[in-house]
Amino acid sequence: MIKVGIIGATGYAGAEIVRLLSEHKEAEVIWYGSKSYTGQRYADVYRNAFHFTDEECMPDDLVKLSKEADVIFTATPQGYLGSVINEEILSNAKVIDLSADFRIKDVSVYEKWYGIKHESPDYIKEAVYGLCEINREDIKGKRLVANPGCYTTCSILTAYPLVKEGLIDPNSLIIDASSGTSGAGRGAKMPNLFCEVNESMKPYGVTTHRHTPEIEEQLSYAAGKDVTVTFTPHLAPMNRGILATEYATLNEGATAEKIKAAYEKHYGNEYFIRLLPDGVYPETKWVEGSNFIDIGFAIDERTNRVVMMGALDNLVKGAAGQAVQNMNIIFDLDEAEGLKKMPMFP
Amino acid sequence: MIKVGIIGATGYAGAEIVRLLSEHKEAEVIWYGSKSYTGQRYADVYRNAFHFTDEECMPDDLVKLSKEADVIFTATPQGYLGSVINEEILSNAKVIDLSADFRIKDVSVYEKWYGIKHESPDYIKEAVYGLCEINREDIKGKRLVANPGCYTTCSILTAYPLVKEGLIDPNSLIIDASSGTSGAGRGAKMPNLFCEVNESMKPYGVTTHRHTPEIEEQLSYAAGKDVTVTFTPHLAPMNRGILATEYATLNEGATAEKIKAAYEKHYGNEYFIRLLPDGVYPETKWVEGSNFIDIGFAIDERTNRVVMMGALDNLVKGAAGQAVQNMNIIFDLDEAEGLKKMPMFP
Amino acid sequence: MIKVGIIGATGYAGAEIVRLLSEHKEAEVIWYGSKSYTGQRYADVYRNAFHFTDEECMPDDLVKLSKEADVIFTATPQGYLGSVINEEILSNAKVIDLSADFRIKDVSVYEKWYGIKHESPDYIKEAVYGLCEINREDIKGKRLVANPGCYTTCSILTAYPLVKEGLIDPNSLIIDASSGTSGAGRGAKMPNLFCEVNESMKPYGVTTHRHTPEIEEQLSYAAGKDVTVTFTPHLAPMNRGILATEYATLNEGATAEKIKAAYEKHYGNEYFIRLLPDGVYPETKWVEGSNFIDIGFAIDERTNRVVMMGALDNLVKGAAGQAVQNMNIIFDLDEAEGLKKMPMFP
Amino acid sequence: MIKVGIIGATGYAGAEIVRLLSEHKEAEVIWYGSKSYTGQRYADVYRNAFHFTDEECMPDDLVKLSKEADVIFTATPQGYLGSVINEEILSNAKVIDLSADFRIKDVSVYEKWYGIKHESPDYIKEAVYGLCEINREDIKGKRLVANPGCYTTCSILTAYPLVKEGLIDPNSLIIDASSGTSGAGRGAKMPNLFCEVNESMKPYGVTTHRHTPEIEEQLSYAAGKDVTVTFTPHLAPMNRGILATEYATLNEGATAEKIKAAYEKHYGNEYFIRLLPDGVYPETKWVEGSNFIDIGFAIDERTNRVVMMGALDNLVKGAAGQAVQNMNIIFDLDEAEGLKKMPMFP
Repeated sequence: MIKVGIIGATGYAGAEIVRLLSEHKEAEVIWYGSKSYTGQRYADVYRNAFHFTDEECMPDDLVKLSKEADVIFTATPQGYLGSVINEEILSNAKVIDLSADFRIKDVSVYEKWYGIKHESPDYIKEAVYGLCEINREDIKGKRLVANPGCYTTCSILTAYPLVKEGLIDPNSLIIDASSGTSGAGRGAKMPNLFCEVNESMKPYGVTTHRHTPEIEEQLSYAAGKDVTVTFTPHLAPMNRGILATEYATLNEGATAEKIKAAYEKHYGNEYFIRLLPDGVYPETKWVEGSNFIDIGFAIDERTNRVVMMGALDNLVKGAAGQAVQNMNIIFDLDEAEGLKKMPMFP
Repeated sequence: MIKVGIIGATGYAGAEIVRLLSEHKEAEVIWYGSKSYTGQRYADVYRNAFHFTDEECMPDDLVKLSKEADVIFTATPQGYLGSVINEEILSNAKVIDLSADFRIKDVSVYEKWYGIKHESPDYIKEAVYGLCEINREDIKGKRLVANPGCYTTCSILTAYPLVKEGLIDPNSLIIDASSGTSGAGRGAKMPNLFCEVNESMKPYGVTTHRHTPEIEEQLSYAAGKDVTVTFTPHLAPMNRGILATEYATLNEGATAEKIKAAYEKHYGNEYFIRLLPDGVYPETKWVEGSNFIDIGFAIDERTNRVVMMGALDNLVKGAAGQAVQNMNIIFDLDEAEGLKKMPMFP
Repeated sequence: MIKVGIIGATGYAGAEIVRLLSEHKEAEVIWYGSKSYTGQRYADVYRNAFHFTDEECMPDDLVKLSKEADVIFTATPQGYLGSVINEEILSNAKVIDLSADFRIKDVSVYEKWYGIKHESPDYIKEAVYGLCEINREDIKGKRLVANPGCYTTCSILTAYPLVKEGLIDPNSLIIDASSGTSGAGRGAKMPNLFCEVNESMKPYGVTTHRHTPEIEEQLSYAAGKDVTVTFTPHLAPMNRGILATEYATLNEGATAEKIKAAYEKHYGNEYFIRLLPDGVYPETKWVEGSNFIDIGFAIDERTNRVVMMGALDNLVKGAAGQAVQNMNIIFDLDEAEGLKKMPMFP
Repeated sequence: MIKVGIIGATGYAGAEIVRLLSEHKEAEVIWYGSKSYTGQRYADVYRNAFHFTDEECMPDDLVKLSKEADVIFTATPQGYLGSVINEEILSNAKVIDLSADFRIKDVSVYEKWYGIKHESPDYIKEAVYGLCEINREDIKGKRLVANPGCYTTCSILTAYPLVKEGLIDPNSLIIDASSGTSGAGRGAKMPNLFCEVNESMKPYGVTTHRHTPEIEEQLSYAAGKDVTVTFTPHLAPMNRGILATEYATLNEGATAEKIKAAYEKHYGNEYFIRLLPDGVYPETKWVEGSNFIDIGFAIDERTNRVVMMGALDNLVKGAAGQAVQNMNIIFDLDEAEGLKKMPMFP
């Protein structure tokens, strides 16, 4: 059994790792890290885990944990892992980081968008960007994986084949996305109160959201040139789910058939990517609780644009699920182990 | 007192007219038309109206109604008013139509997008498009008003000043909008069941939604040339509200100052249009139950685009409220009579 | 115009007073008190009020306010008014208190259930319990009104006629109630986050909720003897609304006809109490945004019990609306002024 | 592998059986029965099943199915199974019925509450009431299992130990329960539209709900005498979950310790029953998607009552999960096989 430690196990993403691993055949959680709840029984904080574990929450001792665990998930605030990572930890255990600390290769871009000084820039180069379907080969055996953001996973996977195959002008890309409120975390903040979120749709971080450079970097690799996009996230009155609706101008010769072929080429054999039939578009409810991303598209002939749409569960494929998928790849397990869950509906 | 008849009073939009007029000083409902509930007490169908009216629902007899009422609101399916309107009705009473029958000037465009043969094309020319803030002068005294659609009101008003003032390329316009489920009506349809809508975001009518040509026609007038846009509606898990997030490429010389000035020029004195402070974006909850539209914007300098955002209550400014506003204009009343409601929060 | 000051204007109940008074013909808010937001523009904190007021939030200076206002609403935490009330304030202005400080006549009961020492017990006797339909005559002209709690208003009004007329055994009364989350206030607390409340029903304060003694005191007056009840509140995933389902054993001779007659006798002429037709039961949605309470009942012949059900909007009839109704009574205005709103549906 | 047929696989309960069995190691669905969708691909109707099955929906041919399947789940309207069951079917395959047809032993009680003539009363005696934790031994090897109702499972399990041990007066029992809307099924009915359910709590079936006699029959067995209860269901604005809050008068000598001991005695070793710590009460969110029922209680010393509370997922422990649990018992598998899911939170 792979021994798993989680730093930040009482956040929503950390707790989702606990849920997913409860059905994983080859891994078990041995450290429920939580600075806020240290010493309390984990199942008293997350009562869904009642009857699954009697463990208490542990402090954030990454060095000690690295000696006990085979792999550590850090579901922590931006800047945390950057401030504590070191060679000892990485030589002891694999680290899969759910924060943004090691996602962006250009440290100045990271520091500009996050407003944080990066304290371990030397490890950025070693880290692999854990977008499994794209970087699978690079992830195998790695020590440090930067698990992609929720919006970014959805945004990139939805557009990637069309960018890669040159079917759209990547700089025309506009990404309009909506997320369930679990993406905002479990911190007690007034704007995330039930009454503030319920019955409301709101844009936020317009032109400034920190997932923008992450999307741009990855799509630039796919395009083979620098890509700049407009990205607008919205908060939707639901617990889980991200829907990304993406717009781009078609390059000459791009047709529905070619677009379909591009998706098939890149994703046709992917277990977690479900390409929807013609005229069917993704809805977040159909992926809830699962590691799937559903993708569909429509051609807007009148304006020579394509509308690409992707939906995933922000806590699973957008966070904990992809993190477990990365673990499976690192340890050369069945990539879908613990993740073969049918979405829950309704 | 202005005598009001409503055809379709037991749909959500019709019922909202009833609610709004219950506090209108110079108008009263004298005919609660409802084909489905004829003979039943209106307050037994809409129990919010209990203690406000003891009237029974009436059949759809437009000719008879026109002799009793000063103004008729038709909150009816597409094609209904087109199939029954005639000179007698219009000489008896004003008609404010909440359907799309008289919104689009080019009958072939209407017939193509709606898939319906228009049975009264001769009245299209007479009808005025009742987007109050834009067409106020033309509405005064008119017999037949085509009340704008919910998405269209939000989409057009949000972009209009920038199109009119030539600050954006109108053909670059992409409109991504989300609506509460009341926009889908009160008909018993499986996709609108609570469990299907709740906890889900979904796009629909992608590249084919029938509000598209309505938006294009009005923005073409503003631009002084033909405009084609991409419009994608989404269903959001909430009762009321539309949020439109709109993207366009800035023309040369367009700055945040000029954009702000354009909004101020066109809307600075409008009671129902609230221009939000810099950096503040609209949220549907803040307009719920009211006739306001809140508008904000952000410049995306990196991509030379502007992101315009508008929010309104689809049943009020997007339907019943604007219809009452049109009535007030036609009858030369205070335009805001019956509509000075502060939004309900939370 | 009656000059109104609000202490706690940026809580949900305080903000609802602002909304209701925006349409009141004889009262205007002159003091938006808010300790947390002092100096900020009120409409920047509650954006529904944008275009309604440009005032800034004021500090909690009750003495100063009493010199400027005719009436003060205190929508404040338990213990606040008790700690600051004095003769000067009450000789300057009427005070309508939305906290529990002056609701319970027996100070030891208050101190036991609230765990607070009452600092102004002398004023308890002067205060009138502002349950308008029951204590209307006593409220007229009073200086200090204890505005009832949300659960208590719903619970008492639903059962009162049957207790008063001796149709049920009051000590058999079990009150099971559910409330929307606005009842929990706007404070940033983790259990009230969207993701914690959404998709969940939960009981809380079981056997210990502080509205219990308030219900018991009032029903004891009605019964003419001491009454003890079981009261269980639940948090429901919605913004507004309280539904109380109440169970009691029928006294001998009690029939559906007598129960109906009792409701008619006490409430038949009440504007804000809507007695539903036979077989129709209240739903919170049908009273949303209004000052109505809808009441229905069913006889359970098999068990010789009656099930009484009442629904109101916790922020209106359960708080701000009843407070305004009390103001109207005190100042001898039309009791329904500013409150003749049809509920909003959907 | 056990071959499973489902009649009614496109209802919410039937679809939940599909979801649960997708992770069951010893059973597989070989017949997706659906009268409404016969011939359509199942995954086009329930898109959560996309990538899990390519099967088409099959007609309701129970005889044919019984020859191909080892076990048949009937998730069908009341009266269906009663009208088609016969010896041939039962000699071919086990039948687990999610309708009420074989739950009530006294056919006249069934016919009275359901208003249906029972067409196969002879099989009622053979059928076992599949409340697993209570009737486990009787279920083993049976041919026909009457799977309990959702409200009944929650209501009975919550009160059973106290009734069985004589700690409460069973005839004082009042059950107040709230259910998510999936309990109302996937039929297109106006009262179940999103806008009708959202933001509302409503009682229904007051004193007449058909789960009442089912609760009474089972609790009568436990009490050893006839029991009559008051049961009030409510519709709550959420997809899943039932919360039952139950009230009863304590018998002499009943204490918190004895109550706790009674729960421990009967449920201490039950995998799917989670007895909550003192002062902790169940919330539906903490059991969502799982087969658990969480139970807590409080003593109301002032009124000599106990408040018992239970929460389960109406589609899992209240329907499909318990049905699978019954299948596991019948076939002598690990009772929790396919059901060891941690609830999903949030």
